[in-house]
Amino acid sequence: MDATRRQFTGLTRPTALRLLAGVPLGRIVFTQRALPAVQPVSHVVDDDDIVIRSPHGAALVSVEQSGVVVAYEADAIDPDTRLGWTVTITGTARPVWDPADIARYRGIVPSWLADGNDQFIRITPYMVSGYRLERIGGKGFTVV
Amino acid sequence: MDATRRQFTGLTRPTALRLLAGVPLGRIVFTQRALPAVQPVSHVVDDDDIVIRSPHGAALVSVEQSGVVVAYEADAIDPDTRLGWTVTITGTARPVWDPADIARYRGIVPSWLADGNDQFIRITPYMVSGYRLERIGGKGFTVV
Repeated sequence: MDATRRQFTGLTRPTALRLLAGVPLGRIVFTQRALPAVQPVSHVVDDDDIVIRSPHGAALVSVEQSGVVVAYEADAIDPDTRLGWTVTITGTARPVWDPADIARYRGIVPSWLADGNDQFIRITPYMVSGYRLERIGGKGFTVV
Repeated sequence: MDATRRQFTGLTRPTALRLLAGVPLGRIVFTQRALPAVQPVSHVVDDDDIVIRSPHGAALVSVEQSGVVVAYEADAIDPDTRLGWTVTITGTARPVWDPADIARYRGIVPSWLADGNDQFIRITPYMVSGYRLERIGGKGFTVV
């Protein structure tokens, strides 16, 4: 147990989206058979929306065109120092149907399998939050 | 976009819990103000329960003694090869109140801040799932 003093430093929305765009994967949080569910997936940030690629069509089949509320989380936290950042998006998820969009996303969102049958889902965020875990003395303010 | 062929290989419950026990952090998935929420936290596996330590008392304050259903996810996925594993627990979360348990967990579950006011929460799993992402040719069976 080390004695490093840490603090949480809140992230602005632009910084949070920039950090999210800099990593290739995160975790989508949704409801499945009335239970909380979570699944790691690949993502890109596209014009402030998050587009994920999932081979788990069955699990996410309840994502309808009208949209469902999901959370999406990505982080980069050093397991030893426990310093880093986490970003969480809350937003509306809808399947991507436009063939031109699908073709474009196939080129930029890595698949986790080798086939081309993945589903693309666009998450339009209405809440973006996140924080850095920093050593005390770093810039920023303590939010917790 | 690489051409590595991958497969998902299902994990047994003992293997999933062993992998979970080998990493220091994961993400708890819960409901907050009727919205899906997710938060990275430290954990240990203790006698097949997962015990997490959270400085986010406010966010998890709805965890009552009677228990609430949560999901808990940890993974180790290489961002370049996208090979690795993920484990998800679904279970009942209850706050840890026993002073002896709290004292013991203070010693083994790292805090993310420097103070001692974190809350400990025990998750008793009733569903343990997970898979490895492997190159095709690795051992195991394709589950998706």
